[in-house]
Amino acid sequence: MSPATIFNALGDPTRFAIVERLLADGEASAGELAAPFALSKPAISRHLRLLEDAGVITRHADRQYRRFRVCPQTIEAAAQWFNDALHFWSASFDRLDAHIRQRGTDGSNG
Amino acid sequence: MSPATIFNALGDPTRFAIVERLLADGEASAGELAAPFALSKPAISRHLRLLEDAGVITRHADRQYRRFRVCPQTIEAAAQWFNDALHFWSASFDRLDAHIRQRGTDGSNG
Repeated sequence: MSPATIFNALGDPTRFAIVERLLADGEASAGELAAPFALSKPAISRHLRLLEDAGVITRHADRQYRRFRVCPQTIEAAAQWFNDALHFWSASFDRLDAHIRQRGTDGSNG
Repeated sequence: MSPATIFNALGDPTRFAIVERLLADGEASAGELAAPFALSKPAISRHLRLLEDAGVITRHADRQYRRFRVCPQTIEAAAQWFNDALHFWSASFDRLDAHIRQRGTDGSNG
């Protein structure tokens, strides 16, 4: 799953709140997840489906009830993107800094 | 800035590509960032403004040109959210596991 797809799934306030609830509680049913929101059942189902499609949550059957959980591999992949981003950023600034210092040296010689 | 706002800013393919470009190059002008996309100047400006409002990028003046950079504090904050999320997830599953084992013990005694 691309990081942009994961961020898009998490970038909606309702979906973000659903994921934070699942992180705190471990798992929950669709009804439990819908309870805090003044949204229709189909609207909640669409949010849950989008989170599933992005790999952020998974559903599994516990006897008669479907329960949702966060998928830790997806959270790890997103965390890794940010950690890589910080390394990229740091490396690109080292190059930029070297380039600016080189320009400064050229200027003083020219 | 709330993590959901940061994720929403990064969750669009054009904005995600702009941020990856800035991570690789360190900084760029609006024109350089717009070049790979078949989008109008106002459309690119809206994407840049949304990224700025979310604290993902900052603009600064270099002589006559405005240049954009990624804001590392925001990337760090988002990375921290994911790291915290993994800890929360792990803790909630330890509790869930203990609860299920407790139920199992109750069942065998009753």
